[in-house]
Amino acid sequence: MEGLSFPRSATGTSSILPPLPWHYSGDLLTIEYRADPGAVRRLLPDELDLANDDEDPGAVAFIWADWQASSDDRREFVDPIRLQYKEAFVVVRCRWRGQLWSRCVFIWVDKDFAMVRGHLQGYPKKLGSVQMSRPVSVGKGGPRLEPGGLFGATLAAYDRRLAQATVTLRGVAEGNGFVNSLPMLHHRFLPRIEGDGTDTFAELVTMRGSDVELSEAWCGDAEIELFDSPVEELTTLAPREILGGYWRSVGTTFAGGETLEAL
Amino acid sequence: MEGLSFPRSATGTSSILPPLPWHYSGDLLTIEYRADPGAVRRLLPDELDLANDDEDPGAVAFIWADWQASSDDRREFVDPIRLQYKEAFVVVRCRWRGQLWSRCVFIWVDKDFAMVRGHLQGYPKKLGSVQMSRPVSVGKGGPRLEPGGLFGATLAAYDRRLAQATVTLRGVAEGNGFVNSLPMLHHRFLPRIEGDGTDTFAELVTMRGSDVELSEAWCGDAEIELFDSPVEELTTLAPREILGGYWRSVGTTFAGGETLEAL
Amino acid sequence: MEGLSFPRSATGTSSILPPLPWHYSGDLLTIEYRADPGAVRRLLPDELDLANDDEDPGAVAFIWADWQASSDDRREFVDPIRLQYKEAFVVVRCRWRGQLWSRCVFIWVDKDFAMVRGHLQGYPKKLGSVQMSRPVSVGKGGPRLEPGGLFGATLAAYDRRLAQATVTLRGVAEGNGFVNSLPMLHHRFLPRIEGDGTDTFAELVTMRGSDVELSEAWCGDAEIELFDSPVEELTTLAPREILGGYWRSVGTTFAGGETLEAL
Amino acid sequence: MEGLSFPRSATGTSSILPPLPWHYSGDLLTIEYRADPGAVRRLLPDELDLANDDEDPGAVAFIWADWQASSDDRREFVDPIRLQYKEAFVVVRCRWRGQLWSRCVFIWVDKDFAMVRGHLQGYPKKLGSVQMSRPVSVGKGGPRLEPGGLFGATLAAYDRRLAQATVTLRGVAEGNGFVNSLPMLHHRFLPRIEGDGTDTFAELVTMRGSDVELSEAWCGDAEIELFDSPVEELTTLAPREILGGYWRSVGTTFAGGETLEAL
Repeated sequence: MEGLSFPRSATGTSSILPPLPWHYSGDLLTIEYRADPGAVRRLLPDELDLANDDEDPGAVAFIWADWQASSDDRREFVDPIRLQYKEAFVVVRCRWRGQLWSRCVFIWVDKDFAMVRGHLQGYPKKLGSVQMSRPVSVGKGGPRLEPGGLFGATLAAYDRRLAQATVTLRGVAEGNGFVNSLPMLHHRFLPRIEGDGTDTFAELVTMRGSDVELSEAWCGDAEIELFDSPVEELTTLAPREILGGYWRSVGTTFAGGETLEAL
Repeated sequence: MEGLSFPRSATGTSSILPPLPWHYSGDLLTIEYRADPGAVRRLLPDELDLANDDEDPGAVAFIWADWQASSDDRREFVDPIRLQYKEAFVVVRCRWRGQLWSRCVFIWVDKDFAMVRGHLQGYPKKLGSVQMSRPVSVGKGGPRLEPGGLFGATLAAYDRRLAQATVTLRGVAEGNGFVNSLPMLHHRFLPRIEGDGTDTFAELVTMRGSDVELSEAWCGDAEIELFDSPVEELTTLAPREILGGYWRSVGTTFAGGETLEAL
Repeated sequence: MEGLSFPRSATGTSSILPPLPWHYSGDLLTIEYRADPGAVRRLLPDELDLANDDEDPGAVAFIWADWQASSDDRREFVDPIRLQYKEAFVVVRCRWRGQLWSRCVFIWVDKDFAMVRGHLQGYPKKLGSVQMSRPVSVGKGGPRLEPGGLFGATLAAYDRRLAQATVTLRGVAEGNGFVNSLPMLHHRFLPRIEGDGTDTFAELVTMRGSDVELSEAWCGDAEIELFDSPVEELTTLAPREILGGYWRSVGTTFAGGETLEAL
Repeated sequence: MEGLSFPRSATGTSSILPPLPWHYSGDLLTIEYRADPGAVRRLLPDELDLANDDEDPGAVAFIWADWQASSDDRREFVDPIRLQYKEAFVVVRCRWRGQLWSRCVFIWVDKDFAMVRGHLQGYPKKLGSVQMSRPVSVGKGGPRLEPGGLFGATLAAYDRRLAQATVTLRGVAEGNGFVNSLPMLHHRFLPRIEGDGTDTFAELVTMRGSDVELSEAWCGDAEIELFDSPVEELTTLAPREILGGYWRSVGTTFAGGETLEAL
């Protein structure tokens, strides 16, 4: 049976995931802030540790991304509904085996293919409505990449707004934040179909992009608000101190991650 | 860490799946027909066999379902966007270990929680736009459950219509088809994050509903058309002969399936 | 040029509105309550008066409706995405020319054809996400039409939840409320394309359904919450006192309204 | 009562349209081709004439646009779901009172505010799913503004694909087409609520953008396919000869149009 993922067949044509590699080009709006380290701890499995006290253990990156992603043969270029998706995600850091890692604890995307790509990579992807403004070069309809440029971003799921943020640009910057800069440490698991609270399979994996191409980065003054939902825990990571806001275009390729350990 | 599925946390609140059991009430519009048995064969892994020649090996059930599904505590009743979803799915039958099984080869749903529930159960769920008319008891705005009642159903994904069907009721019936009546035989698997074409985990599972409660069934004259898409193989199961169309309300509970065999 | 509405052509095929009459069958969940009469007054044009003091001038009906609507030739039956829509709307009453009228002050629907139908009838329709639970007759997936039956309804627009309500049924009732029971009094107007704050056309119209067919009505205990949005004024109609909650199926036909007066 | 459009109130806060002016910044992908002039004629009211034989009377521009649009106070910048929309529209030309005009005969947008803005301007806007790829400056996830850059665009409504197009860039160009370059000549009308086939109001209006700011234009080789729908007439404008494909960013302001003549 052919196909990277389901549904598989003799040809693999209907697999929800096309073959690797996947090439990405997108814009990232990042807000970094400090939350309660105890709240971060409550989102980490026992086998992981918080970052050390001198490693900013409550640091959070809330990132909105507006992506185009395509296969080697560019098949998605001519059917842009399969090319584009947006996502909003929350990254913290953790320690495992003496090393510091980035880890995505919450993430929402707006297409099914992006959701299942994320599941392959250990991202806990749900669907949401992800919105972010784009820089313009003509007219007054949107923000410009210039001092004072006003960018907005929102996230909603199940008809409730979960987060909204703004970044007002100050100037160019060295980078676009530090929380999401390490290799990702993710769990992949499959609960038993018996639904008895145990997993039939679990493992730790890591991944990072290759062939990374970066635009100039911009930094600015950021604001972010988080809202309650009966099926989310986002507000446990409420900001205590804003660290910064950033805008950057990123190109990257995912050609496969690495299995670290079976659990 | 608590939570039937991701994202897990100390409380389990944000898990995309609530705890079992899940109770379902819905309406099913079923079209049964015969396709090319060779096409069914090309959708089955090697370890499964086609149904025998005297078991209608090319039989297909194309089912539209309009569901409400809730937890024991009825938490979804007051937030109906988390209560309701629609799905369209294609069921064939197969042989494994001397037994005849039902098996879902293609399926589309319109909510993320339903998608991930299906992945837990081995359904190859994608997202789609699933539409079906509902019976009415007052007015002329929709079909009635009576001879001549005209029901329609459509399926689309990625802005392409994939299937459309009609059933014109003739009268009450003994049941609502035979293809989907057996325990399901599904594969669950997780491709290695290395993306090297191998799975890190695979198994065979089975499941069926419990506490099934059925309305009167209706049968009728059915028509169905399937359409091409570059990312689907539905038209390989084009109908050669229509067997029948059915409408029925179904109540059922999923309290966990059964692991059959690791692969 | 043929076609009830735009775009018109030699055939009228592409008109967003099919020819009259339009037949409706749907379920209505109604919450009636008293708001500040002053807030109702601020939603009425000068030429209309509040209901008299002994006519409950602050009375509001907040109604969720899950419709199927079709043309005489039932063309929409076989393409249910064109058959079904949901709406949530807010009705108050007012006086004009010595008569008491119902009037819709806010309304959201989830399909464009329903939006433009409403504009023809003077309803100020916007798009929204409208959700309401449906009664079931088998299974435990949804509420039943019986004492204790728990119905929920929500409304969102632009990724913000605007309203949520529940009705817990107590028993059968004489009717499903009084606020929306009168002929509608609506303004239709078209602002000048110059955008100078004046209308090029305005008139008062009235309409009501014909061939009304009603199911048994149910009443119950109701709760409703309204939420803020920068582009809505719904919370000005916050409930001061709940009057009741109702569920009923309604069939009706719209075969045209009546022009009352040019303004 | 305040508010440019419905619903009006004492404050105007909930009007679906914010006050003028509206500032637009967006990307346009244009495909120009020749269709049957008789088909264009069947989309024009009697009082308009086809362009003359030497004015390319069957010329059509099919334009996809990815917009951000904001008010003077930039209120939409911080809530990008109210800032962004996409549209696909079909422009022909016509003669009236000795002058040649552009005229939009079909148009689909993906937000309600954009739909009602269009109705104010005489555009026959429906809702649709409008998709188009965006140029990238880093990575391989999308097309670049360079020779060989491959852009795709699609349109769907009511779960049917209506159009798909590609443009492969060749180089920079003088402009981005000629069909849509004239002032628009649009009808605005309101059918009588009696639904008797007559209009209670009709007029001719014109509009064009002000403060236009243009990026460099690109031209390329274009392909376009149109598909049938029971509620559309797009395929009557099937291409007989492709004239060209173009990409350009456009900034413009709408500060009001001009009433030409009551009908």
